[in-house]
Amino acid sequence: MVRRMFASDNASGAHPAVLDAIRAANEGHAYAYGDDDWTRAAEAVVRRHLGDEARAFFVFNGTGANVTALAALMRPYEAVICPATAHINVDECGAPERFTGGKSIAVPTPDGKLTPEMVERAIFGVGVEHHSQPRVVSVSQSTEYGTVYGPAEIAALADVAHEHGMYLHVDGARISNAAAALGCSLREMVADAGVDVLSFGGTKNGMLFGEAVVFLRDGLGADFRFVRKQCAQLASKMRFIAAQFIALFGGDLWLENARHANEMARLLAEGMAAVPGVAITQPVEANEVFAILPREAIEPLAKEFGFYVWDERAGEVRWVASWDTTPEDVAAFVAGARRLLAG
Amino acid sequence: MVRRMFASDNASGAHPAVLDAIRAANEGHAYAYGDDDWTRAAEAVVRRHLGDEARAFFVFNGTGANVTALAALMRPYEAVICPATAHINVDECGAPERFTGGKSIAVPTPDGKLTPEMVERAIFGVGVEHHSQPRVVSVSQSTEYGTVYGPAEIAALADVAHEHGMYLHVDGARISNAAAALGCSLREMVADAGVDVLSFGGTKNGMLFGEAVVFLRDGLGADFRFVRKQCAQLASKMRFIAAQFIALFGGDLWLENARHANEMARLLAEGMAAVPGVAITQPVEANEVFAILPREAIEPLAKEFGFYVWDERAGEVRWVASWDTTPEDVAAFVAGARRLLAG
Amino acid sequence: MVRRMFASDNASGAHPAVLDAIRAANEGHAYAYGDDDWTRAAEAVVRRHLGDEARAFFVFNGTGANVTALAALMRPYEAVICPATAHINVDECGAPERFTGGKSIAVPTPDGKLTPEMVERAIFGVGVEHHSQPRVVSVSQSTEYGTVYGPAEIAALADVAHEHGMYLHVDGARISNAAAALGCSLREMVADAGVDVLSFGGTKNGMLFGEAVVFLRDGLGADFRFVRKQCAQLASKMRFIAAQFIALFGGDLWLENARHANEMARLLAEGMAAVPGVAITQPVEANEVFAILPREAIEPLAKEFGFYVWDERAGEVRWVASWDTTPEDVAAFVAGARRLLAG
Amino acid sequence: MVRRMFASDNASGAHPAVLDAIRAANEGHAYAYGDDDWTRAAEAVVRRHLGDEARAFFVFNGTGANVTALAALMRPYEAVICPATAHINVDECGAPERFTGGKSIAVPTPDGKLTPEMVERAIFGVGVEHHSQPRVVSVSQSTEYGTVYGPAEIAALADVAHEHGMYLHVDGARISNAAAALGCSLREMVADAGVDVLSFGGTKNGMLFGEAVVFLRDGLGADFRFVRKQCAQLASKMRFIAAQFIALFGGDLWLENARHANEMARLLAEGMAAVPGVAITQPVEANEVFAILPREAIEPLAKEFGFYVWDERAGEVRWVASWDTTPEDVAAFVAGARRLLAG
Repeated sequence: MVRRMFASDNASGAHPAVLDAIRAANEGHAYAYGDDDWTRAAEAVVRRHLGDEARAFFVFNGTGANVTALAALMRPYEAVICPATAHINVDECGAPERFTGGKSIAVPTPDGKLTPEMVERAIFGVGVEHHSQPRVVSVSQSTEYGTVYGPAEIAALADVAHEHGMYLHVDGARISNAAAALGCSLREMVADAGVDVLSFGGTKNGMLFGEAVVFLRDGLGADFRFVRKQCAQLASKMRFIAAQFIALFGGDLWLENARHANEMARLLAEGMAAVPGVAITQPVEANEVFAILPREAIEPLAKEFGFYVWDERAGEVRWVASWDTTPEDVAAFVAGARRLLAG
Repeated sequence: MVRRMFASDNASGAHPAVLDAIRAANEGHAYAYGDDDWTRAAEAVVRRHLGDEARAFFVFNGTGANVTALAALMRPYEAVICPATAHINVDECGAPERFTGGKSIAVPTPDGKLTPEMVERAIFGVGVEHHSQPRVVSVSQSTEYGTVYGPAEIAALADVAHEHGMYLHVDGARISNAAAALGCSLREMVADAGVDVLSFGGTKNGMLFGEAVVFLRDGLGADFRFVRKQCAQLASKMRFIAAQFIALFGGDLWLENARHANEMARLLAEGMAAVPGVAITQPVEANEVFAILPREAIEPLAKEFGFYVWDERAGEVRWVASWDTTPEDVAAFVAGARRLLAG
Repeated sequence: MVRRMFASDNASGAHPAVLDAIRAANEGHAYAYGDDDWTRAAEAVVRRHLGDEARAFFVFNGTGANVTALAALMRPYEAVICPATAHINVDECGAPERFTGGKSIAVPTPDGKLTPEMVERAIFGVGVEHHSQPRVVSVSQSTEYGTVYGPAEIAALADVAHEHGMYLHVDGARISNAAAALGCSLREMVADAGVDVLSFGGTKNGMLFGEAVVFLRDGLGADFRFVRKQCAQLASKMRFIAAQFIALFGGDLWLENARHANEMARLLAEGMAAVPGVAITQPVEANEVFAILPREAIEPLAKEFGFYVWDERAGEVRWVASWDTTPEDVAAFVAGARRLLAG
Repeated sequence: MVRRMFASDNASGAHPAVLDAIRAANEGHAYAYGDDDWTRAAEAVVRRHLGDEARAFFVFNGTGANVTALAALMRPYEAVICPATAHINVDECGAPERFTGGKSIAVPTPDGKLTPEMVERAIFGVGVEHHSQPRVVSVSQSTEYGTVYGPAEIAALADVAHEHGMYLHVDGARISNAAAALGCSLREMVADAGVDVLSFGGTKNGMLFGEAVVFLRDGLGADFRFVRKQCAQLASKMRFIAAQFIALFGGDLWLENARHANEMARLLAEGMAAVPGVAITQPVEANEVFAILPREAIEPLAKEFGFYVWDERAGEVRWVASWDTTPEDVAAFVAGARRLLAG
């Protein structure tokens, strides 16, 4: 029996077109480490999305993208300001600290979104040697709470960062979902909004593995090849990451996948909101749904349908829809919830 | 036109059976990060090869395997003793130093192989706080010079390491080629010989990507899950690394691939040795051939057939055969070399 | 004219007895790095205060003591839980992150003091590889807000730490002031309360320089000699740190110095509380006074009497009394404040 | 009885003038961390010696000076080339690796001295991401073998470094001894010779503790204040390091101390060379003497006169003369050696 779940968008596999692209690239020999035609083509694909200045470097995974990006931007005596809920703050086992030697300044937020005011308040001790010097603002788009920054919100964060001589990094593990949600291009939302560096997500959008670090401003990332290699994020058979990126982002597949996942999340939220005892806790703007359930229902429901508890103390759970989530999956889940909660 | 080359065994793609296995695993949902049936099966496959105590952790790439293994074994005030030619010493851009904070003690060797006597001489300052404390001996099997340690040689290194309270790590990016060369099982060559930790290579044997860190002694690697995660080597869609390992190592495909690559290297060395002006510089025991050529021939030959200069000063080049190298590839290369060198 | 100020207890120099001790130790030769009679005697002095199991290692400065202590207790994938106001969190430029590679979990507090409940709430994700594993609770005694933990409060923190398999570290840059405030011995307050590791402060109590890291539980600190050396905190002419420790802690001088500083702070707070426009913001339990002043008075007063603004946004300032602060210093300051605030 | 020994120049204490200077500085209050008149005056003293561009930052110890200097010059993916005998390579327990995250490339030398040719041969893989990028050449002056680079030799090293876009760092723990040996000013030997950064030694010349990192070229060290603080090398009561530097380097005391130590080493070498069975192994150019003795004589002689074995395998020992070594010390040692070796 094929398992279906809502645990995460990385519980799904790869889109068939991605596997086809890998098979097509699997012919003959190619120089390793990115000195190949697929990689050059994938870099061009990223430039089409993010502008001629965009320089993409492919890496293995999301944590790898985030930490190599931060390691390229920060010296050890510097700090990154991020929401307390940020993946880099809570879900990477301290990888940013280990790779950068620097400090994470975690800011509590109600919805996973940082505001310019929060950034201003978190900036502290500039120019004084006793204090870690703020160098990067990092936000996730969409956020770990499934919320989305509008392009103007991103631009305002970029402005406040740049005013203070800082960079804006975007953890875009779900950047496609955000673009789909906003109905705008990656360029409007990222490059035009003033983002300096993007962790460009591929895995959750339907790849087997693979992300990119994209530098969007001249002069940034000049030494990134060395950072990537030393941080063990340089793939030898690079063409296979590149081919996957081309498959998704060379056309509109990325957008279809993201739209579909978002739509499934909306459907799920709608269905579950109508189940007695369930309260949706965050706006459902991308492909994630957060909810509070009766505690006794969580375990049996999670066992049957596969999802994680988000906040043990609050009894809050997270459901994630993916590019391959079906309306039938959603319907079965809602029905199961009704059944269990009625019990 | 399909490109053929001798640059490295990572210039080849994936074995068709590996792609088939990925496609087969690409059905339905699975918990991420290794909490899935494929990963559990692949761990069992490794145990079949390396014994019941072997605990395998899958990672993305060879550098990732080496540095997470070392980071698990060493504290920052400790050191790893390795041949000067070791991948960890010259080809990882200082990744071991960055991940461990510790020191690499590089020992010159004629053939890429460390001996117990060399290890003894490199041990220095034990118990004295001014000096990095030797903690790990690391050797590559097969070596970066294409030479192979016999099981007794590995056992002797393990003995000297253990006598000094140190661990023996084997960088097995080409462990399959070594096993094929020696005609012995992985178990005889690794676990039975006293190796403590193995970087178990998959990519060069025919995978898209994927290696494993295998702890072979009780008590080692107890906290490795955290090391792997913090070092950004934990794949979310882990089942796809696992499926590849099963495809290669679940049966004999790994051995066929390795034997074939070794055989092609032997053929190549034989053919090239007969070309006037070419001198083979190292014993050809696995799938690599080292040679000295007239300097003026290197560039045109490399341009046409794809390989790297190994030692600029010596004019030494490296040719690597892969699982998919054909006798025709070899014949064309030898003919091309004859033609160019006759010119 | 001799300058007097309230900027910090490190604005004062060394106690005359400390200089005398240095001069007395400055005779003949001694093996470097602590292999000398002064160091052995100073270690014994620490054992008299903190129990037979206490093992003291002398280092240069407070940040050095804290980060080497943490580096000895933590692996990079682990975390330290501390108050947001902790010196290790805000005043060491990210040194703990750089030296440990691990994460600081900063907990907001009203008064600089952590409670067991706060620790419990900050513990998160234990056993789950995605999250930094809490390993150390670190508190300052007296705190950066001049408040003091009673022995029972320390014991409660030790209990909660130990229940979770964590260590309790105390940043005792002002441990003497805390002991003087509580009227109890260092042993009662530290060793008997279950503290695992103490940063034992000397500089602020009247030394030129010098602190100690003291391990209080068997098995801890076994490899600390290497940590200290690699972290560049091993003094060559160690006897001169040791001699200072003996001068202060061999008898009661440390306690007289601390009592005096505390008394001067009390006197200052009393005097200033009576000045119209001045509000004391924290309980004055040790040798620090925090206050809110009319903003326009801060700069001229600070210029004349030497102190720092603590919280720019709140208009809060900090005044610190030292072992050599005199009643005349205090009276002059209060009079100056009256004069300026009346203006 | 006052102990006399030849173990190291850090076995001696502080020059009386240094203690007097500390006592004189111990009056009243001063802002901590170097915002004081003594520090400003000591910085000016360094400029008088090393030129107007010289910017001095005082630190605690020699390892601290070296590693903060390297951490300021290097990114983690870079490397420092140094003689295999360098203090940074063998006597700092891997501190450079831990503080920089980068690689040490250790070059064997006959006499502890690096040549431009050795540097050229050690440069490898420039521009290629697989290899640590050489960024710093580091030499000790005088060397760990007691040998001295002439100004032209330093200039040649600076030239080769600069041609390759690298920096020249000098570990000057015994820079005064080298200046005394060469009869030239610090400026000729350091700034005029093209050195970029100097670890400026104080402790071995007669201080209690204290060294400086001196940047000699515009643009270098701009962020060093943060590096120093985060690396735990910022003294709170900085005036006391500064006062010591002024005492030694404000006049000619540093030179008298160094000349005397060198002269005592010369005397010692002369005396010992005439003892049957003793062979001096290195030119005695500064204040260190290396010799081979009959193995059975080493332990009793070391026990009585205090010195270390340098090379266990070769039976080579090291004797160091200090600013306070007397002709009587030397005579007693030579007599003792004669007695023991005659035995």
